[in-house]
Amino acid sequence: MAKIISKKAGKRKCDRGVALINDDFLLTTGPARELYHGYAEKMPIIDYHCHLPPVEIAEDRRWNDISDVWLGGDHYKWRQMRSNGFAERLCSGRGDDGCASGWERFEAFAKTMERMVGNPLFDWSQLELARYFDVTERLCGASARRIYEKCNKRLKAEWFSARGLMKKSNVVVVCTTDDPVDRLEHHLAIAKKPFHTKILPAWRSDKASKIENPMAWNHWMDALAFSAGMPVRTWDDFLSAMSRRREAFVSAGCRVSDYGIDEIFAAPYTESEIKRIFKKARSGRTSLTPEEVLKFKSAWLYEGLKADAKTGWVAQLHYGAMREINSTMSSELGIEAGFDGIASLNVSWNLARLFDRLEREDSLPRTILYSLSPNDHEMLATVMGAFQKGPVRGKMQLGPAWWFLDHKEGMVRQMEALATLGSLGNFVGMLTDSRSFLSYTRHEYFRRLLCRMLGEKIERGELPNDIKWLGGIVSDISFNNANSYFGFKA
Amino acid sequence: MAKIISKKAGKRKCDRGVALINDDFLLTTGPARELYHGYAEKMPIIDYHCHLPPVEIAEDRRWNDISDVWLGGDHYKWRQMRSNGFAERLCSGRGDDGCASGWERFEAFAKTMERMVGNPLFDWSQLELARYFDVTERLCGASARRIYEKCNKRLKAEWFSARGLMKKSNVVVVCTTDDPVDRLEHHLAIAKKPFHTKILPAWRSDKASKIENPMAWNHWMDALAFSAGMPVRTWDDFLSAMSRRREAFVSAGCRVSDYGIDEIFAAPYTESEIKRIFKKARSGRTSLTPEEVLKFKSAWLYEGLKADAKTGWVAQLHYGAMREINSTMSSELGIEAGFDGIASLNVSWNLARLFDRLEREDSLPRTILYSLSPNDHEMLATVMGAFQKGPVRGKMQLGPAWWFLDHKEGMVRQMEALATLGSLGNFVGMLTDSRSFLSYTRHEYFRRLLCRMLGEKIERGELPNDIKWLGGIVSDISFNNANSYFGFKA
Amino acid sequence: MAKIISKKAGKRKCDRGVALINDDFLLTTGPARELYHGYAEKMPIIDYHCHLPPVEIAEDRRWNDISDVWLGGDHYKWRQMRSNGFAERLCSGRGDDGCASGWERFEAFAKTMERMVGNPLFDWSQLELARYFDVTERLCGASARRIYEKCNKRLKAEWFSARGLMKKSNVVVVCTTDDPVDRLEHHLAIAKKPFHTKILPAWRSDKASKIENPMAWNHWMDALAFSAGMPVRTWDDFLSAMSRRREAFVSAGCRVSDYGIDEIFAAPYTESEIKRIFKKARSGRTSLTPEEVLKFKSAWLYEGLKADAKTGWVAQLHYGAMREINSTMSSELGIEAGFDGIASLNVSWNLARLFDRLEREDSLPRTILYSLSPNDHEMLATVMGAFQKGPVRGKMQLGPAWWFLDHKEGMVRQMEALATLGSLGNFVGMLTDSRSFLSYTRHEYFRRLLCRMLGEKIERGELPNDIKWLGGIVSDISFNNANSYFGFKA
Repeated sequence: MAKIISKKAGKRKCDRGVALINDDFLLTTGPARELYHGYAEKMPIIDYHCHLPPVEIAEDRRWNDISDVWLGGDHYKWRQMRSNGFAERLCSGRGDDGCASGWERFEAFAKTMERMVGNPLFDWSQLELARYFDVTERLCGASARRIYEKCNKRLKAEWFSARGLMKKSNVVVVCTTDDPVDRLEHHLAIAKKPFHTKILPAWRSDKASKIENPMAWNHWMDALAFSAGMPVRTWDDFLSAMSRRREAFVSAGCRVSDYGIDEIFAAPYTESEIKRIFKKARSGRTSLTPEEVLKFKSAWLYEGLKADAKTGWVAQLHYGAMREINSTMSSELGIEAGFDGIASLNVSWNLARLFDRLEREDSLPRTILYSLSPNDHEMLATVMGAFQKGPVRGKMQLGPAWWFLDHKEGMVRQMEALATLGSLGNFVGMLTDSRSFLSYTRHEYFRRLLCRMLGEKIERGELPNDIKWLGGIVSDISFNNANSYFGFKA
Repeated sequence: MAKIISKKAGKRKCDRGVALINDDFLLTTGPARELYHGYAEKMPIIDYHCHLPPVEIAEDRRWNDISDVWLGGDHYKWRQMRSNGFAERLCSGRGDDGCASGWERFEAFAKTMERMVGNPLFDWSQLELARYFDVTERLCGASARRIYEKCNKRLKAEWFSARGLMKKSNVVVVCTTDDPVDRLEHHLAIAKKPFHTKILPAWRSDKASKIENPMAWNHWMDALAFSAGMPVRTWDDFLSAMSRRREAFVSAGCRVSDYGIDEIFAAPYTESEIKRIFKKARSGRTSLTPEEVLKFKSAWLYEGLKADAKTGWVAQLHYGAMREINSTMSSELGIEAGFDGIASLNVSWNLARLFDRLEREDSLPRTILYSLSPNDHEMLATVMGAFQKGPVRGKMQLGPAWWFLDHKEGMVRQMEALATLGSLGNFVGMLTDSRSFLSYTRHEYFRRLLCRMLGEKIERGELPNDIKWLGGIVSDISFNNANSYFGFKA
Repeated sequence: MAKIISKKAGKRKCDRGVALINDDFLLTTGPARELYHGYAEKMPIIDYHCHLPPVEIAEDRRWNDISDVWLGGDHYKWRQMRSNGFAERLCSGRGDDGCASGWERFEAFAKTMERMVGNPLFDWSQLELARYFDVTERLCGASARRIYEKCNKRLKAEWFSARGLMKKSNVVVVCTTDDPVDRLEHHLAIAKKPFHTKILPAWRSDKASKIENPMAWNHWMDALAFSAGMPVRTWDDFLSAMSRRREAFVSAGCRVSDYGIDEIFAAPYTESEIKRIFKKARSGRTSLTPEEVLKFKSAWLYEGLKADAKTGWVAQLHYGAMREINSTMSSELGIEAGFDGIASLNVSWNLARLFDRLEREDSLPRTILYSLSPNDHEMLATVMGAFQKGPVRGKMQLGPAWWFLDHKEGMVRQMEALATLGSLGNFVGMLTDSRSFLSYTRHEYFRRLLCRMLGEKIERGELPNDIKWLGGIVSDISFNNANSYFGFKA
């Protein structure tokens, strides 16, 4: 296929002058400015869900090139670059065409910025430039070189390290995402040299559920056996071993679990079926039926949530992604390289059945629900409303806009759904879900949008103009609610 | 699980001064104010769908305590209170922990108000306080006692009764929701002593469809036999008995039916299958298969709609709720206690098939469609558009935002879908769907939003600034359309 | 059923004075006006998807009566008129009650306009009146006669013909919609006498897929055999014959294909199954099973897209319509008479599988995806993002709002989804999808909305106030992107 890029399109120069980011970015009304500058801005950050590698915190990682920071693992950016016609060597740099230089990749991204009108990456990038690099001009092809050099110079600053960035951003708690078989050695190392930010592990046991890939699954079960110091031959062994690992996670300060699931698994099953399926898979014998896989996943999810309730952890359910759907590219570049999409699903009845079963056994944990479909917020908010229960305030939570929905419209849509169908005042607020130490600006972005939303409601007469009251709500959503909901005592 | 409530969160005092409700509440533009004050405000109210108990109208009920009025049966409020961590004795007052005092419950609700930023209950509560109790300050923990006492004093006013509230609200027609086996004695009693408001029954035959619970179903069929004065042994008997009851409802002024259905039932079936299924269920023999249940429900729905067309009634279809999904709480507190959710469904093809079958037999009644999912409006509006037919103007209607969608965003979303895909000018407008005599403020709320929406379109140049024309439309949607569509002659 | 039309409703006079359309229609901000008047307005039009009959271009059709132009084939208008209670003789004029006069039908439509508050037809009609007839007053019952006469007079102008309208609207490329069996004689005739606008055919092979109707399908296969000059007895014959016809279309300048599909067909099948199914259907033997039909459609779609990639055509997928769902009316009036609706579907996994299979064989064409459901934009934008690939800029496209979604809210919703999840700057922009030569105002409508959206983002501080940069984006979306994406070289 011939190279088809408009000769006219995308060749224009950007000019230096017009800054997007300023003190009142997104604060469209007087009340919004009062709420943000008077309340939101000063609250510390709790980042209760992210994908930072603990080793980078333990070793207090530093960087030499802004391209490492920005383009090392950020599949959001790679997708945009591909969408703008750039070769893989400039995007992920992982393709069979090799990896371009840091400057080449930065320039390609800068040119990509020119086409991303209204995309959250545009805003995030400009925010990160402003907050961490003192750059406020628009990033585009024409400004790329200048900005590239300024950023790389800044990277040499003493404070520009993993921990330094957390401190500068006033982050007081971070929950990473960890495998139950992980020995938590980096977490233990960090705990020995505490700093401004409390770093806690989070329990993500997804690999235990992927029984449809017997080899990888058995490999993981072996690792579990090793990590728990006991054999894992049966379903009961599995539950015991997981229980031991939970204790280790509790000791390391874990307060939260996470389930990354395609859909809400709630197929009926019997205990003896699961025992049989587990043995069959563990024996390495030929593959399971789709029904067996589904039953197993349903049991894994149910038992996980039940254990969360017992341990007193908050459970997070992330569902609705189609992962690695471009198998050609995924097999070339590996997972998490930007080849995912939103699934269309009808999960309401499964979700209701799952919660109902847990509630009947008094085993429904505090739960945060995230769907990748923007169509699910209202359904989720009402199902959760049917399972709210004292004495916890906001026991069931509608999670903040996740992944593909993490943009202005997506965040406002989630907050509107929560406000109208739940209780916005009890919302535990934002997280980064990120692999980058520069992403704390997303908390700023979120808080500005929250204040904008409230401010516009005040100006339109939809809310009383009572800044003290609403400022309290803003502070709660920014920090206090998460702090008490998870029990961080930060 | 330990009691987990933020020490900081939710402890702030509210201040007295800031009123939400004033003459121009929600009227953000000059045209909106002209439309509301010049047209909408003065129109009488037709409440064509509600759940007021006829006995309370017949007896002209009065109340001693605002908590009775507000917290006696309002599951919207209970859900919010649970969501804020309050014990069941303060919410429904029906739990095994007993029922708290009126004041305790009112105070708990007042504190709940502090967290409900952007929730329709907040607006409705302040509107009811303003319109019926002359209270404009914000209800919160700090103002609760003062407001509680003022309200209870007001409840003693001569006019503060079921009928008095209807008159004060200028309600000219109310349709209640009645079971076909109901003897309509309260309706007959009311008819003997007519007052400002015409009270009509509405036909809701859902219990006839719940063949999956044979005991309750047979019990209901026995009641039907008694009420119709004939045996109900066969499907044909059933249709005849229903026909007799329809006549009784016609005599009592009924103009409208209602179907509360999980989904759109449109399974293929034969007449003889239905006869066999009916007999099988009537014999009390062991349970039906899911296929049999679905076939029966499909026949029940089809025959009901066909009879509506013949009788000249308007049919209402309410679908998409998941009811009593928290079985633990529902078995403790009973139905309609706030444990419901929105279902995710794909009903478009079933709906098209059902309408098509009725149309082929020239038996499609005027129909109002309500989905509990906000994602269905556009689908519904287009399916209905395929079955519009003169001489009725707006024969097929997209019902106003229902239940969980009955809030500012939900109402605007419904009206925008109707405007863009149907004909907003023919909309039959608002209803309360309520169990409370204070809910007429929802008509005011709706009319203000309608005028706000039109006013903003005018200001943005999307509609001609022709107040006389648009005022006529507003009057029609507020009153005239419903009056002629249902044939109330009010 | 008695005639039920409000006596009060819809009887009000409209007044002459209030114009909707002016130079700054929909341009709510200064930046919007700069972007529109400085950039969008002057760009020529590429209409890459429409349903204009080539014969009418070849013959340079003219009209005597505005009712012919407006009500001859426009099912949007018919639906609105039915919805307002008018008899079929006034709407489509095809019913068994005959066809009313041009004036009667125009008047009925004018009265319908009075009820269509917020409907895109209202805006489109006023825009067409303003741009082609110099009429700016509001069309309603009172103004109907005056406007009718003015329009009919204008129809006599020299330039008021098919080609004249295209020239006046500065249309440089039009792609019609053509059947592979079409001999393209009108296209060839047009090519002999070229004019301002390049008229190209587009490949729409849907009839080849409708194997569930064996008679019509076999009839079509016979026509294909004739047109390709070879027998079509087997699946391989079919592919060869289609290949020959593709060559003819290439010669006539075709650059684009189109698939009008109920859902995304992606059932698993084998080559030999398809061969057997084809033979079975071709033999005219009794009907196929639903599974066979689905397999065949899946093969047809896959092979079509693969051939598109090979030919270098852009593929368009239009899915999610329920067509002719009112069988009573459709059998009376024929297809495309306004009896369609939006389907609720979950197609994400099928779409991902289809694209993945094509990508594995390096056969995924440039593709534009259109769903009729407004709930699918985000899913589509992310699935497409997983298949973007250089060197094409914006290889996978989210098509502009289609059919029932083609209105202000629908267009903005599509553009917001694209902006937040894809790359708005690479959008190929608007098309008319129309059967009318007056529809080019929809490009104007679209461009005004695009500028409004950007202008409001600038004013709210969501985009830098950089008119030169954003003006370039606007020009690209209006014209340049489509020109290079399709390779029109206009």
